[in-house]
Amino acid sequence: MPAGLAFMSHNTFGHLFRVTTWGESHGVALGCVVDGCPPGIRFTRAEIQAELDKRRPGQSRFVTQRREPDEVKILSGFILDEDGETMITTGTPVSMVIENVDQRSKDYGEIARQYRPGHADYTYDTKYGLRDHRGGGRSSARETAARVAAGALARKVVPGMIVRGALVSMGEKSIDRANWNWNFVGDAENPFFTPDPASVGVFAAYLDGIRKAGSSVGAVIEIVADGVPAGLGAPIYAKLDQDIASGLMSINAVKGVEIGNGFEAARITGEENADEMRMGNDGKPVFLSNNAGGILGGISTGQAIVARFAVKPTSSILTPRKSIDKDGNDVEIMTKGRHDPCVGIRAVPIGEAMVACAIADHYLRHRGQTGKGVGE
Amino acid sequence: MPAGLAFMSHNTFGHLFRVTTWGESHGVALGCVVDGCPPGIRFTRAEIQAELDKRRPGQSRFVTQRREPDEVKILSGFILDEDGETMITTGTPVSMVIENVDQRSKDYGEIARQYRPGHADYTYDTKYGLRDHRGGGRSSARETAARVAAGALARKVVPGMIVRGALVSMGEKSIDRANWNWNFVGDAENPFFTPDPASVGVFAAYLDGIRKAGSSVGAVIEIVADGVPAGLGAPIYAKLDQDIASGLMSINAVKGVEIGNGFEAARITGEENADEMRMGNDGKPVFLSNNAGGILGGISTGQAIVARFAVKPTSSILTPRKSIDKDGNDVEIMTKGRHDPCVGIRAVPIGEAMVACAIADHYLRHRGQTGKGVGE
Amino acid sequence: MPAGLAFMSHNTFGHLFRVTTWGESHGVALGCVVDGCPPGIRFTRAEIQAELDKRRPGQSRFVTQRREPDEVKILSGFILDEDGETMITTGTPVSMVIENVDQRSKDYGEIARQYRPGHADYTYDTKYGLRDHRGGGRSSARETAARVAAGALARKVVPGMIVRGALVSMGEKSIDRANWNWNFVGDAENPFFTPDPASVGVFAAYLDGIRKAGSSVGAVIEIVADGVPAGLGAPIYAKLDQDIASGLMSINAVKGVEIGNGFEAARITGEENADEMRMGNDGKPVFLSNNAGGILGGISTGQAIVARFAVKPTSSILTPRKSIDKDGNDVEIMTKGRHDPCVGIRAVPIGEAMVACAIADHYLRHRGQTGKGVGE
Amino acid sequence: MPAGLAFMSHNTFGHLFRVTTWGESHGVALGCVVDGCPPGIRFTRAEIQAELDKRRPGQSRFVTQRREPDEVKILSGFILDEDGETMITTGTPVSMVIENVDQRSKDYGEIARQYRPGHADYTYDTKYGLRDHRGGGRSSARETAARVAAGALARKVVPGMIVRGALVSMGEKSIDRANWNWNFVGDAENPFFTPDPASVGVFAAYLDGIRKAGSSVGAVIEIVADGVPAGLGAPIYAKLDQDIASGLMSINAVKGVEIGNGFEAARITGEENADEMRMGNDGKPVFLSNNAGGILGGISTGQAIVARFAVKPTSSILTPRKSIDKDGNDVEIMTKGRHDPCVGIRAVPIGEAMVACAIADHYLRHRGQTGKGVGE
Repeated sequence: MPAGLAFMSHNTFGHLFRVTTWGESHGVALGCVVDGCPPGIRFTRAEIQAELDKRRPGQSRFVTQRREPDEVKILSGFILDEDGETMITTGTPVSMVIENVDQRSKDYGEIARQYRPGHADYTYDTKYGLRDHRGGGRSSARETAARVAAGALARKVVPGMIVRGALVSMGEKSIDRANWNWNFVGDAENPFFTPDPASVGVFAAYLDGIRKAGSSVGAVIEIVADGVPAGLGAPIYAKLDQDIASGLMSINAVKGVEIGNGFEAARITGEENADEMRMGNDGKPVFLSNNAGGILGGISTGQAIVARFAVKPTSSILTPRKSIDKDGNDVEIMTKGRHDPCVGIRAVPIGEAMVACAIADHYLRHRGQTGKGVGE
Repeated sequence: MPAGLAFMSHNTFGHLFRVTTWGESHGVALGCVVDGCPPGIRFTRAEIQAELDKRRPGQSRFVTQRREPDEVKILSGFILDEDGETMITTGTPVSMVIENVDQRSKDYGEIARQYRPGHADYTYDTKYGLRDHRGGGRSSARETAARVAAGALARKVVPGMIVRGALVSMGEKSIDRANWNWNFVGDAENPFFTPDPASVGVFAAYLDGIRKAGSSVGAVIEIVADGVPAGLGAPIYAKLDQDIASGLMSINAVKGVEIGNGFEAARITGEENADEMRMGNDGKPVFLSNNAGGILGGISTGQAIVARFAVKPTSSILTPRKSIDKDGNDVEIMTKGRHDPCVGIRAVPIGEAMVACAIADHYLRHRGQTGKGVGE
Repeated sequence: MPAGLAFMSHNTFGHLFRVTTWGESHGVALGCVVDGCPPGIRFTRAEIQAELDKRRPGQSRFVTQRREPDEVKILSGFILDEDGETMITTGTPVSMVIENVDQRSKDYGEIARQYRPGHADYTYDTKYGLRDHRGGGRSSARETAARVAAGALARKVVPGMIVRGALVSMGEKSIDRANWNWNFVGDAENPFFTPDPASVGVFAAYLDGIRKAGSSVGAVIEIVADGVPAGLGAPIYAKLDQDIASGLMSINAVKGVEIGNGFEAARITGEENADEMRMGNDGKPVFLSNNAGGILGGISTGQAIVARFAVKPTSSILTPRKSIDKDGNDVEIMTKGRHDPCVGIRAVPIGEAMVACAIADHYLRHRGQTGKGVGE
Repeated sequence: MPAGLAFMSHNTFGHLFRVTTWGESHGVALGCVVDGCPPGIRFTRAEIQAELDKRRPGQSRFVTQRREPDEVKILSGFILDEDGETMITTGTPVSMVIENVDQRSKDYGEIARQYRPGHADYTYDTKYGLRDHRGGGRSSARETAARVAAGALARKVVPGMIVRGALVSMGEKSIDRANWNWNFVGDAENPFFTPDPASVGVFAAYLDGIRKAGSSVGAVIEIVADGVPAGLGAPIYAKLDQDIASGLMSINAVKGVEIGNGFEAARITGEENADEMRMGNDGKPVFLSNNAGGILGGISTGQAIVARFAVKPTSSILTPRKSIDKDGNDVEIMTKGRHDPCVGIRAVPIGEAMVACAIADHYLRHRGQTGKGVGE
């Protein structure tokens, strides 16, 4: 092996619910192996596919027009129920494969020798030498399809858990939280995963302007997990929020993560921030607010888990930017072709998947920590 | 073993530079074992102690008056150089111990049966049953002394790296970045780790007011690592920013983490956010800005690594808050005794330690990934 | 999820050369993901296939007659060289898939409720409840096909390494080491992987007798890895022999592992056991013997790595044995159908694969430990 | 850091019951951190000390006369019960420290530049360069004291488990299994951990002869764990026997490991090897033999776990052997000073500790795998 060639490692995340992803955008297929999925979980291929369809490109004029059907095949880890459709996990690894239909190598031409600002071109080249040969296709956002497939299974691991995500701001525009409507997020008329119906027109006009200007814009996504039992997580280095932060920060283009009221917590007083409690009429403790985002001391409180993450604007833009090429020449770069003017939009289902996987992992770890059966 | 007793696990972080911490605030001692520290690193006990002294309580009226000398003993992993003082690591595990001088169990009295809002009392009790017996003392911020000791070693692993932290805002008050002066951060007249000399009076007056009101306030800390070579990190699930986020989020009371311009990236356009490049006069690439915080695609760019984290306000306050006790009674809680009105202050050296450890870990991983000697 | 259902975990082995296998004998396919394979390694699909063909059933009257072509597909982690045939690894995960052609569930009938002596029926049932539903197909020796595919890649990781295995005894019959001929092991006339041409007739007659008697017999396999550089491994808990032992013991039906002269070392004196050294004519150190099997203090010496493992006799036999069924009835069991009378034969390529993977893993770890490029 | 300096890593073993050891023979102290010990386990310092006393040198004329009291201090992870003596684990890491009393560096003189046959001198020097500086003291058998301390805790994790070891052969001499008496193993008149009273005189005479001849001899140790519940372990890469093999092979000088009848299984037929079953009078399944050594398919059967390991003869002998020195000169080496003529004797408590830790680890993993409380 020639000296100086680096390799990529750590294509696995999770401790007990372990997800290993593989595959390049230019290759035959991509997929994942989920090891540690408990037995007895019932799901259908259609349910996995539905999650994948949410992140698939080409669904509106606001996202890239590349067409990939992203059809998932499930190769192991289940037996078919008598209905011939419902799969029941057996506790063995679940292998899922998605073929690449449009796998031709693009002719990047000149761009292949230039460092596009905001892209990882320079860092990849510094580390791996020839970025095309060292898995440039691996770092494509296509890899996240495998995460979404794994996340679809993770959702099933915690009984009663519902993980939903929404875009809460795009560039300078934000939703009105008073209008929050989860049902609207998946609406066919809603290309933005916004929970605020009134925001669709605002976002559409804003993003059309951005796109026409050859520009791009960032976004903030909020993920909410309801139905998570209290007690998941552990202090010190196995905090639930720590693993959620790590998972969200591993998504391409993410630059910030918050739990609960996040950075706002640093601006307010202890009285304002403390979530007070009272006994409910049903004899169960009730929190009067959820500034903590459902996590105290690294352990879930039983309230909704709330996490937000910031996605930077798409780096591929039509506006020329100063940069250099591999030979050390100063160049001006503009990226032609169609790109998502706001990659944050398609990050919504990916964020959901990462949060679902983190919680599923801690749910299973909790079994070992407490000696209680899952779901008991 | 009685059913239902849970245990705590994962007292280790890092992959190649692995830190395992142990010890409770009520026990004999606390400490850490650093496994994976490369051989040949020269350090003195005084250098480790200097870092510990930075986070030690009792240094100004703005932090708790508990007195712990926090003297570190280094038990293994080194040989003494001929000067009898300089230690040279041998590549074997470095074990460090800090005795607890003031280890008497506090008489928490009534508070022991009440769930203090903002504290982990409720979640611990839900998970572990008897929180005192299940390592309540483990979750004390004293555990972070062991992190700081490990971080002091981590700083030595990457030649030329300098990791510094500063408090950039406290509640509603922020520093003026135009005044940034790293030398001032460690000044004896500066109880806040602020880099802005003009802010000391502002913070002092503000925090005195908070303290007298029986209140508390949060803070934002910024950690900057200079001298980090390009190429550290890896795409997918071994991103450098991912491990920094995980490390910072594992610090008590942290609710948000940002890399570079963080959440601000979600508000601006692609042109604004892109860090342009030019060839420098010395024939080396120069970035014209550092919105990326020194990390692109999960890999270091060679610029300064910049991370920020939000610390929530101290939960122990004199202002009464509604809560419940273990028996399900509604109660009003106020926490007597002296507490840090802003725990964020003492989080500065802890944040430095966690960032130093994450970078040291990736520095060593880079060796395996590239086949290049460290520092070559 | 119903209480009491257990799941299987840990379908991964290796630290830097990490192999995750998946798939059941009754499922659609099986395969593996190799994460951590360095970039720049050249191989062909035919080379992987050749290893798989060695362990494929149905190749002589001495092994089971089930027919599985075991054709491997390679889905990721490579680019094609200009010859359109040679694959070059990119450092990203290599995903390999083998379809199950003969995947119909067998009608085990009565046997499904009985605990066959020597089989894992009782332990599986105790742990997993319904053994068929809990991945009985996962524990089939078909899983080892995935190991062999991974091992074929592992062989390429260490330049110059040659890993070969041979059957050295079968039941009461042993080879004559004076006749050792590696070239004969793969000979078409040699159904036993024996290195001793004179042993073929002896083994054939012996095994025919065993088979006709409805009996079975065990075997001892020796694996030799030539061309392994000195210095691989580490003391304490990362010994090279420790990982070889773990890998070989993970093969179905293995009950013992030896390194070098193994148990014989316990019978002889220090003078006899010590491998003396002299400087060779070429100025390089020469060992005068290899009782150590190429490993001292957990680290390779540069001599051949020699490991042996004992495979117990096939548990499925035609001779009736006493047992019980799931309902607690005493029964007599004999297993009809054609089975390998000596499963140890087909364990040869599997042992090679596990040793190759362990050495490849330590080879890559050595890079990180020494800061030397692989192959330097 | 100078190029070419390697470091040692992986000073941790176990998955849920994780043991990290640290310390050198020439340093201040050595010890371990046990992370993952469940809460509620009651033990005394005297119980830990009793295990350490078993492996302590200087207890008969057959082992080295170096004197180390090996007094253990327990620094964390417990609360004291009301009797002021019984410790109750809290689920947090248990840190144990043993001071080195006789820690002066030995004057190895000439030997420091020579490669002693059978020792790891050559491999260490090849890997680490200067073996003294790279933790030569770490690879001393003193490190095993930390394992024994951890093993003493591990014994308590599995209720009802009793782990005992015995020396079953020494060089050419073996015990008579008909005389097996566990009570005799710890007898004050028994310097060999032999279970056969009749063997003491034979071993004593034999070993005196070996010692006087300036020679040394190997040994085989058998470890038996009674009271291990059925169901521990998992197929594929988490087999209980795999982890026992790895643990035993990690002990200095071990060259072979067997489970149950081990290599003998390769010599006999399927009928002979199969452990038949019958329903017992108490309505529980009974195995009529234990050739499997208590493990089938990687999972415990509920019978005694039986493992054996081979220890090579002490490499330090008075008989001159050929070797080379660091400068490439041919030399004759004989090791003066007092050494154990049979290091296998003191390996007995170490083997017990490694087996106890492996079983404790799988016991805790079983909780997570089954959702059953430990001990239920």
